[in-house]
Amino acid sequence: MRSVRHAQRFIFFLVFPAVNLDWLISSGLIMAERENDGAAAKRPKTDAGELSSDSPVSDFKITRILRECAREKNIFIHGKVKDQDAVVILEKAPIRKDTLSELLKSSQLQLEMKNDVYSTYQLQAPAHLNEIKTTVICPATEKHVKKYLHQEVFLVEESGEDYRTVTLPYISSQSFSVQWVHNILEKKAEADRIVFEDPDPLTGFVLLPDFKWDKKQIQDLYLIAIVHRRDVKSLRDLTSEHLPLLTNLRSKGEDTIQRQYGVPPSKLRVYFHYQPSYHHLHVHFTSLEYNAPGCGVERAHLLSDVIQNLQADSSYYHNRSLAFPLRADDGLLLKFKEAGKL
Amino acid sequence: MRSVRHAQRFIFFLVFPAVNLDWLISSGLIMAERENDGAAAKRPKTDAGELSSDSPVSDFKITRILRECAREKNIFIHGKVKDQDAVVILEKAPIRKDTLSELLKSSQLQLEMKNDVYSTYQLQAPAHLNEIKTTVICPATEKHVKKYLHQEVFLVEESGEDYRTVTLPYISSQSFSVQWVHNILEKKAEADRIVFEDPDPLTGFVLLPDFKWDKKQIQDLYLIAIVHRRDVKSLRDLTSEHLPLLTNLRSKGEDTIQRQYGVPPSKLRVYFHYQPSYHHLHVHFTSLEYNAPGCGVERAHLLSDVIQNLQADSSYYHNRSLAFPLRADDGLLLKFKEAGKL
Repeated sequence: MRSVRHAQRFIFFLVFPAVNLDWLISSGLIMAERENDGAAAKRPKTDAGELSSDSPVSDFKITRILRECAREKNIFIHGKVKDQDAVVILEKAPIRKDTLSELLKSSQLQLEMKNDVYSTYQLQAPAHLNEIKTTVICPATEKHVKKYLHQEVFLVEESGEDYRTVTLPYISSQSFSVQWVHNILEKKAEADRIVFEDPDPLTGFVLLPDFKWDKKQIQDLYLIAIVHRRDVKSLRDLTSEHLPLLTNLRSKGEDTIQRQYGVPPSKLRVYFHYQPSYHHLHVHFTSLEYNAPGCGVERAHLLSDVIQNLQADSSYYHNRSLAFPLRADDGLLLKFKEAGKL
Repeated sequence: MRSVRHAQRFIFFLVFPAVNLDWLISSGLIMAERENDGAAAKRPKTDAGELSSDSPVSDFKITRILRECAREKNIFIHGKVKDQDAVVILEKAPIRKDTLSELLKSSQLQLEMKNDVYSTYQLQAPAHLNEIKTTVICPATEKHVKKYLHQEVFLVEESGEDYRTVTLPYISSQSFSVQWVHNILEKKAEADRIVFEDPDPLTGFVLLPDFKWDKKQIQDLYLIAIVHRRDVKSLRDLTSEHLPLLTNLRSKGEDTIQRQYGVPPSKLRVYFHYQPSYHHLHVHFTSLEYNAPGCGVERAHLLSDVIQNLQADSSYYHNRSLAFPLRADDGLLLKFKEAGKL
């Protein structure tokens, strides 16, 4: 899921949270911050590692919860430090394998329930083995607050006609640059990250790791194939004319991933997003076991289904109604509302 | 996602972890155990709430990690307590809003990084405000260990022919009972849980909450519609003949959920599973904002897409290749391997 925020990533390493919220959430704060640490390490860190005497959170007055996730054990809080607006983000750290023995030995257990071979407890651990990652943004602007505020999501059903009268004019008016995509295709940027290229102008593509993947383990493998053709904005533009491109991309993409990372096609989820984050045709290759953001049925379209649908009906994606989610603050949602489609 | 484990749920309240792993994982241990607590509360709990002097985890020798999830902050460990096999499950508790102020006031912060308005810390909290839910199964059998062991998942591509020669014979040979479904349809069980019924034998259905949903908040709304017809095993059996059933189910299901829970159709994800957990046609209605287990593109099929596909081609689901994930220990996967299809 590269997007307009792709352009921000160079800035990101300097000013850290210019990162889009869904990325922050999905990749885990930890990952985002680890990248930042890499950059920060090059600069002097005068007081890192010391216990803070001037704790900004002990004075923190909570205004409201912006969002929280019980499953991921994080919470985003808006409040005030003295007179300044601040956002505080807490996320419990993953359980570390290297300190697991110590954790079990040195903790106290409070019995909750015992039944046959099963028992449950609350474990109270030494604080240093059970830390909570804390991010403070202070002073925070209204923009920061909005970024972290939970946004409602709506499912839109877009007919082929809606696409041409509502969506396409909106996309065209926005003129999101895909210059960064062209830079990759022309080797003006990220040439060293390319894992595979088929240079054919009609059926070719480049394959490279998505920024969410740190390439350290294959559990969350995530690569993107970007086609060389520049005249296909999304799934909506595909016809049977593009079948050679799609079948070529599928077979060579899968072959490369098997060869390079040892992951066979049967362990991959290969799909388009609709709506995509940027309007230059690209395909997502993710590990089947990785619950990748955007792999839900409401946004993802398996490449294998797309190929079959186009084989049966060249105008399948021209005519069909396609459902997709839009956040409440998405400009396209407003257009659908204005057109009386929601 | 009701399944063979549905039959186990009555037992579940008595012996607790007769619960299927993916449910335990997906709904969070906490939720599963909260249900159990409800039952347990009716029985005397002699020593619950006391700090355990005889802690089973302080003697625990770790053999191996069965599975872990950094995103959800849990870990499943196989080991020994004295000479007995045991499984220990740790999961960090969600961050509680009611103790948030106390947590921020009484914790120590260790600065990691400071840059402009952004700073990150490790927060060390008082142990009682930062507990770890612990489940111990001791003595654990080989079956317990297997249940919690991470299973590889494979994507199978099943052609229409594969369905008839591999999948259908396998399903038929397994004779998983759907008696519990018939009990619901005949009001012999769970009659009080039914939210809506259309009694028509051909186009009718019952709508009721899924067991994963505690009905306390709409964020994770999850209902199931079970059709009255008993001759449709899954998506594979659908033809244009079933369009009146599908459109009726969609409109009345959505209307009911809007009326009963105030959730409009634009905030719902309505879909089939393929493969389903049980072979009696049913449809999932989940909150769009809830990342429900099984809503990934590799297993879910939007009802709106299914309707359109059948309108265009009555034999769409008879003929198409359908991709779906199977766990390594699924008997159907073995059948596909034996048939040389993987």
